[in-house]
Amino acid sequence: MRPTALDWSIDNCTIARTMEILGERWTVVVLREVFNGVRRFDQMRDRTGVPRQVLTNRLTMLVERGLLRRHPYQEPGERQRYEYRLTGKGLDLWPVLVALLQWGDAYCADPDGPPLNVVHRDCDAEVGVVLRCAAGHDLTSPREALPRPGPGARRRQPIS
Amino acid sequence: MRPTALDWSIDNCTIARTMEILGERWTVVVLREVFNGVRRFDQMRDRTGVPRQVLTNRLTMLVERGLLRRHPYQEPGERQRYEYRLTGKGLDLWPVLVALLQWGDAYCADPDGPPLNVVHRDCDAEVGVVLRCAAGHDLTSPREALPRPGPGARRRQPIS
Repeated sequence: MRPTALDWSIDNCTIARTMEILGERWTVVVLREVFNGVRRFDQMRDRTGVPRQVLTNRLTMLVERGLLRRHPYQEPGERQRYEYRLTGKGLDLWPVLVALLQWGDAYCADPDGPPLNVVHRDCDAEVGVVLRCAAGHDLTSPREALPRPGPGARRRQPIS
Repeated sequence: MRPTALDWSIDNCTIARTMEILGERWTVVVLREVFNGVRRFDQMRDRTGVPRQVLTNRLTMLVERGLLRRHPYQEPGERQRYEYRLTGKGLDLWPVLVALLQWGDAYCADPDGPPLNVVHRDCDAEVGVVLRCAAGHDLTSPREALPRPGPGARRRQPIS
């Protein structure tokens, strides 16, 4: 009856570490904007209503963490400014965003349906995430998967 | 140059709504525990160190939102207690957790590697998320996908 997970430490859990980045309010909204091509501070401000200082902080954090990079641009007659682009590390969050969208569309949409579809450029069919193992098998349920201690697994003092 | 996303409202964005649930500190940690078979309050407390009142609040929220359900159990000589199990709605978050794990393993693991692997029960190969369209094509890059206004898309007043 006692779950084996209790034998293992969560100190180096990579889900928790990822949520330290994504769990901060507005962070995912900012990433969503950049994925949607909204790259400039004033455009993000205008569309999201994120308070100016909060948006500055989030963008700075995402640059420091290596998810976004600053890219200079200059409109005619204005000073040089920076827009924000995804790095490779940031682009790799794409499956996370699609997974969030898919769940949100299923459970959080208004009765008229979700506001956004993501479609395959080549065939226009809707895009979603699926689970697949490295041997190429699709999984249809969490019950087909097993947790295993990884190379960085650390034992913890079990409760009595 | 002006991103077309700016024409559309974000008021009913389902990613933002999902993050209202998952973005609260500890929520994903609690879900991770239940996915790992750690279903009881004291076990979660012991392994995660989440403060008692916070854990109570998160569990209550997750039950109210329909992601977890309470299931009674009774150890010999003790009073009846409740453990927490995933509902169908909760189980459907599995791809989100695997996507978070996959990104975290790539970018947030310690040098000795991630503490947990998720493997396919049938063949032992590691499990990850992949993007696929409804017509069955795998996508290897966000650039192969396009955002489209969905049925619930609402126009907004564009900035000048």
